[in-house]
Amino acid sequence: MNDNSRPMQRAIELARRGEGLVEPNPMVGCVLVRNGNVVGEGWHQRFGGAHAEIEALATAGAAAHGATAFVTLEPCAHQGQTPPCTEALIAAHVARVVVGCRDPNPVVDGRGIGALRAAGIAVELFESDGEAAALIAPFTKLMNRGRPWVIAKWAMTLDGKLAAASGDSRWISGEESRAVVHRLRGRMDAIVVGRGTAEHDDPLLTARPVGARTPTRIVLDSQAVLSLDSQLVRTASEAPVLLAAAANAPESRCHALREAGVEVWQAAPTALSASDRWLSLLDELGRRRMTNVLVEGGAKVLGALLDAHEIDEVHAFIAPRFVGGAGPSPLAGEGLPTMAQALSLVDRCVESLGEDLYVHGRLKSEKAR
Amino acid sequence: MNDNSRPMQRAIELARRGEGLVEPNPMVGCVLVRNGNVVGEGWHQRFGGAHAEIEALATAGAAAHGATAFVTLEPCAHQGQTPPCTEALIAAHVARVVVGCRDPNPVVDGRGIGALRAAGIAVELFESDGEAAALIAPFTKLMNRGRPWVIAKWAMTLDGKLAAASGDSRWISGEESRAVVHRLRGRMDAIVVGRGTAEHDDPLLTARPVGARTPTRIVLDSQAVLSLDSQLVRTASEAPVLLAAAANAPESRCHALREAGVEVWQAAPTALSASDRWLSLLDELGRRRMTNVLVEGGAKVLGALLDAHEIDEVHAFIAPRFVGGAGPSPLAGEGLPTMAQALSLVDRCVESLGEDLYVHGRLKSEKAR
Ligand SMILES: NC(=O)c1ccc[n+]([C@@H]2O[C@H](COP(=O)([O-])OP(=O)(O)OC[C@H]3O[C@@H](n4cnc5c(N)ncnc54)[C@H](OP(=O)(O)O)[C@@H]3O)[C@@H](O)[C@H]2O)c1
Ligand SMILES: NC(=O)c1ccc[n+]([C@@H]2O[C@H](COP(=O)([O-])OP(=O)(O)OC[C@H]3O[C@@H](n4cnc5c(N)ncnc54)[C@H](OP(=O)(O)O)[C@@H]3O)[C@@H](O)[C@H]2O)c1
Repeated sequence: MNDNSRPMQRAIELARRGEGLVEPNPMVGCVLVRNGNVVGEGWHQRFGGAHAEIEALATAGAAAHGATAFVTLEPCAHQGQTPPCTEALIAAHVARVVVGCRDPNPVVDGRGIGALRAAGIAVELFESDGEAAALIAPFTKLMNRGRPWVIAKWAMTLDGKLAAASGDSRWISGEESRAVVHRLRGRMDAIVVGRGTAEHDDPLLTARPVGARTPTRIVLDSQAVLSLDSQLVRTASEAPVLLAAAANAPESRCHALREAGVEVWQAAPTALSASDRWLSLLDELGRRRMTNVLVEGGAKVLGALLDAHEIDEVHAFIAPRFVGGAGPSPLAGEGLPTMAQALSLVDRCVESLGEDLYVHGRLKSEKAR
Repeated sequence: MNDNSRPMQRAIELARRGEGLVEPNPMVGCVLVRNGNVVGEGWHQRFGGAHAEIEALATAGAAAHGATAFVTLEPCAHQGQTPPCTEALIAAHVARVVVGCRDPNPVVDGRGIGALRAAGIAVELFESDGEAAALIAPFTKLMNRGRPWVIAKWAMTLDGKLAAASGDSRWISGEESRAVVHRLRGRMDAIVVGRGTAEHDDPLLTARPVGARTPTRIVLDSQAVLSLDSQLVRTASEAPVLLAAAANAPESRCHALREAGVEVWQAAPTALSASDRWLSLLDELGRRRMTNVLVEGGAKVLGALLDAHEIDEVHAFIAPRFVGGAGPSPLAGEGLPTMAQALSLVDRCVESLGEDLYVHGRLKSEKAR
């Protein structure tokens, strides 16, 4: 722990308060320290609102003069929805800026740091465990690869089943676990399930209670067979429903669903495999600047996502019960041929939720993201 | 916590020292307390050795006079391999005996307590959370139902797989987990796997390092196809191998395996289903007075065991990695039709072993055991 660690840690903490509220912007936090005292704090609070630096400078007032600004992300040097933060920091006469990580946005990348240095402000890049970069990983993926951050979620029994052989899966996990899922949903841009799950469980896929944003409810359904009587279709006017069909879906079905208020989107005609259809959809969601999507199953949809190498984060709920039989296990698809090739969670985190175990973490990234 | 709790807890602790050494006898511990001081301690140390009460009285000597004896299990009143403990307690002039639980053995049940009371010794049955009874649950099952206590063990990925689609399962769990399995093996009477596992993994199934006892290695293999070149057969002279075949197994195969040093046992001709063959085998192991058996898979063998309602305890190792695909999940078989019927672990215990999670516990008993 060096002198920079504590204020940077605090800035990261502040940044997280914007989770679910700022996307597709990155979460950012800022702490101003003068003579060892915190003189200002701020964070990016909502999309379109002031940046963290501006908020912190406002709380500090004249005390910002000669202070060190700890910012989780390189300050912007361009006119966006708000004026450049570099100018505000220069105008406030801060003496030094410690930056958590560089901005992956090509419009910024390095220019914020350059502008500050040109104005005679000392700038340091914080050498940390990468927490500031991890904070904005979804933003970075969207920026660099044009696709949202994909979170796979499942609830399984201790014998690895998503459902009993009959398909029954209500309920595997307990109330506490389900409450965590609802909180997760409330900060997502979209919730995705497969046709099998839509048919079998007839889910609503809303966050209850409602969260910071209202996720689009997406069903992967090549032939657009989703029932007009399903809960999803019947509530299409309350929260958006997007049906991701294949290019060859019957026009009559697409039409009927559209009439019922569902947006029907069709994959590129070249997307023939399940994983290619996934990639085609993720590209589309990226174009819509969706930052976080939660994929809730079933096994085929999650398996195809694994095959597409697009799982970024996992939230698994494990109930201490078992059913045996031929029910699906969480990830089907092609899979990886040997255990040595299995994908690992980095920063695996385990919590107890009532009787259940809750294991979550991110994947070791296979490619630069 | 009343006054009896602490010494009874200690007696249970002492009893556990006999784990793996005393079976098919029950583990028993005894603490002698006089005027609030512990004056003697003992436990049943090995099969055929002195009972816990005798050991404790020996360490106490004359101090046993007027003391209270805390015994995890009702003292025996019959001549077995050693003289009755009730007589020794009476002869030592203990004033009071607190009993953890009654002896399920019909030769004892209640008579030990009766004999002590007849001699004017106050006897109390300890009202606890059932820990003293839980301590001897395997003994009780063997006594009441003539079958060993069955522990199911598996290692799975976070997506519920026992193996990748290719069948490859080495290794799912880490070194620490595998060390725990070897310790578990070292106190078992038998280790069981199915033909599929024997063929695919060619395992040795020994405890390394060796433990308190040398378990019999059992393969469920109806048609006795186990290869003479398998590691199990090649090491049959070092540790017993039992092949559990069906009544109709080809005589030539049985003969060849017997020649190679394998004991070939055949199920009752009436045991036609996989679960019936399991029950037939468990009855045989009970006749041999095996107290604890560990079933290490694969999915079909564990599933049939679940269908037979004979899983008493589960040890599951969960690695924070996933493979997807069509590999088996831990329990196949018929299974239970709905989640509401899933079997639960009582006293679920979770530990971290390196990267892995280790979940173990006993099943809610479905019938009096
Ligand atoms: N415990 C849990 O957390 C949980 C969560 C969800 C579901 N479940 C259970 O899982 C079962 C359903 O799982 P499932 O595997 O049968 O069905 P699923 O994964 O929900 O849906 C699979 C279907 O989705 C369609 N699909 C369209 N595009 C796809 C793509 N890119 N990749 C993959 N699939 C695509 C395919 O049908 P088309 O070819 O017709 O398009 C495919 O057959 C139910 O029993 C449900 O209760 C449990
Ligand atoms: N990760 C782990 O902890 C773990 C542990 C073990 C195995 N595995 C993996 O699991 C796979 C093997 O599993 P599996 O399910 O295919 O095979 P399995 O359960 O090991 O063996 C099944 C076979 O056992 C025979 N059998 C005889 N009596 C039986 C009975 N009463 N109940 C059930 N089966 C009986 C049957 O063959 P017959 O009809 O010919 O007798 C049956 O097909 C391998 O890939 C192995 O690597 C993983």
